[in-house]
Amino acid sequence: MNHDAPPTHPIERLREFTTRVFLHFGLSDADARQAADVLATSDLRGIDSHGVARLRAYVRAFEMSEVNPRPNIKIVRQTPSTATVDGDGGLGLVVGPHANRIAIEKAAEVGTGWVAVRGSSHYGIAGYYPLEALQHDLIGWSMTNGTPNTAPLWGAERRLSTNPIAIAFPAHEEPPIVIDMATAVVPVGKVEIVRRRGENCPDGWFIDSAGRASNRPDDLFDGGALLPLGGDRAHSGHKGYCLAAMVDLLCGVLSGANWGPFVPAFVLTDREITEQVGIGTGHFFGAMQITAFMDLAEFKGRVDHWIRTMRATKPAAGTDGPLIPGDPERLAEIERRESGVPLSPAVVDDLREVARITGVPLD
Amino acid sequence: MNHDAPPTHPIERLREFTTRVFLHFGLSDADARQAADVLATSDLRGIDSHGVARLRAYVRAFEMSEVNPRPNIKIVRQTPSTATVDGDGGLGLVVGPHANRIAIEKAAEVGTGWVAVRGSSHYGIAGYYPLEALQHDLIGWSMTNGTPNTAPLWGAERRLSTNPIAIAFPAHEEPPIVIDMATAVVPVGKVEIVRRRGENCPDGWFIDSAGRASNRPDDLFDGGALLPLGGDRAHSGHKGYCLAAMVDLLCGVLSGANWGPFVPAFVLTDREITEQVGIGTGHFFGAMQITAFMDLAEFKGRVDHWIRTMRATKPAAGTDGPLIPGDPERLAEIERRESGVPLSPAVVDDLREVARITGVPLD
Repeated sequence: MNHDAPPTHPIERLREFTTRVFLHFGLSDADARQAADVLATSDLRGIDSHGVARLRAYVRAFEMSEVNPRPNIKIVRQTPSTATVDGDGGLGLVVGPHANRIAIEKAAEVGTGWVAVRGSSHYGIAGYYPLEALQHDLIGWSMTNGTPNTAPLWGAERRLSTNPIAIAFPAHEEPPIVIDMATAVVPVGKVEIVRRRGENCPDGWFIDSAGRASNRPDDLFDGGALLPLGGDRAHSGHKGYCLAAMVDLLCGVLSGANWGPFVPAFVLTDREITEQVGIGTGHFFGAMQITAFMDLAEFKGRVDHWIRTMRATKPAAGTDGPLIPGDPERLAEIERRESGVPLSPAVVDDLREVARITGVPLD
Repeated sequence: MNHDAPPTHPIERLREFTTRVFLHFGLSDADARQAADVLATSDLRGIDSHGVARLRAYVRAFEMSEVNPRPNIKIVRQTPSTATVDGDGGLGLVVGPHANRIAIEKAAEVGTGWVAVRGSSHYGIAGYYPLEALQHDLIGWSMTNGTPNTAPLWGAERRLSTNPIAIAFPAHEEPPIVIDMATAVVPVGKVEIVRRRGENCPDGWFIDSAGRASNRPDDLFDGGALLPLGGDRAHSGHKGYCLAAMVDLLCGVLSGANWGPFVPAFVLTDREITEQVGIGTGHFFGAMQITAFMDLAEFKGRVDHWIRTMRATKPAAGTDGPLIPGDPERLAEIERRESGVPLSPAVVDDLREVARITGVPLD
């Protein structure tokens, strides 16, 4: 055993703690369990930044009365295949799953369902939602906007978030393909890790406050901005900007939520929002019935074949060959269900603070 | 006037020539005009690689009887919001617009329409299709797979195409936002241009036949492969691979078309296809009624605001600030409608060859 590895925590203990914390802030039993499930799924799948590591921030949002614990989530407009949902200021971890279920129900009725959401807040990992759709043998989509930290190409200001796109496809004998990716080159957290090590980052991750290329982490935190996927113009950073724009337009503009630089911060900062252009944070969900296009068994067999073909690709020198989207998260989940979730001392400190605030025992 | 600039050609002359060439190969009048319109739109919008520069290749496909000039394009499965379309081996420039219209019709009925297409061939620029949707005040989507030239991250073989994604959003006073982007870092043509100049490319565009980073253009053509958007792992090339996978799964796997390494080449090559896994090339189209989500005028006003906000971003040092997706193509169209389409001598030679083969006069 590696003595430097942080101690691990059984997922069911973390889930129970998180559920009770949400109950403490007045969520219904079902909503508290739902919200805890989103965070637990993130921790299980190895996306440490979006699991219980964020619980302290959610708690702060409740303390500041920024989140409505008993939202009246409602459809404000709909057609057979679409809905616009207002989350009534609820927790994104509750509003998101609710809206995603509407997309799933509509897909069962008319082949596909597409739901734009406003009046929400941070909804956890984008990949949670297509995983839900997979339970119904659907192709699921999920996108969200969020706190601005990324520049449009050739801009020197934070105008967009890392706006993720997730989509998943069921297979038969193979595990499903689960894509869950942000549209910036890297997340802020990755730069933070390099900064703590006192090192420099590779070129092409971010710019300084004047919009110049930089690899010094301090430049990002001193008014710089992440670069969109691709990085600079020579590497097609305009394409990452296009993707982030697409996500923002679907999640923010189309739903009636805030968009771009006006999306409220998830973790409170001193960033001054100059204008409110909509309601809360925005998401966009989709669900597609596979049988609307092709027999289910045929499709799943074709996905198996696709997966095996990509796995059989000749490996690039110095690598073990291509992965299939979702592989790292799936392997993390297998290990963590068995061995528990490793939490850094800083996260454990945060959870102890949450336990102190709420009176919910951690151990 | 720049004496090095190639002579320009009025778009209506090119359109007429192209239409008559397609008529020569037996297309109906409506289909010939439709196919010519896709190519003319590409030439007008400055996407020179996808306009009449490709006519020689389309002609070759007819000469080899690889394309069905009178396809019976049909819906093989449908629900209120979806359809699977078989293009019966027709020209992508005909099958694509036909299938896109089905998506548009379904959107009018149930809010959105989503169409997966098999049995097609090269469909021109991805952006043509959302431009059609814009005529109906819809948000339009378009994707296609194609000839493999891109490696999955950590692979050393061509397994995917540059699989583009296009989507467009109408505005009110501002021009629409038109995203049309391939999911590889750069297209093959861009490497070809650098090769002709006898120069090296920036790092991160492609790999050699062993999967090693390279910037020597010859390495791409000697069995190398393009890198997916992002490039190497440090710059999140896995994300570009995820996007290319998503496009291939929707266009190829879900439709019943060929996918990945099995997509037939558009221009005949000596590449040996080892296996047929479906029918022809695949596309995926979507159309979303804006009024299904929000009042049209409100949405368009919000898009105007989004555009003006992004344009007002502080420019990065040494730039004029961010563009809006679609700006370069829109400006090219304004200029080319006025001054004609510049064609390189090589393209003019190709067109003369087409004129000779078909008997359609070029001048």
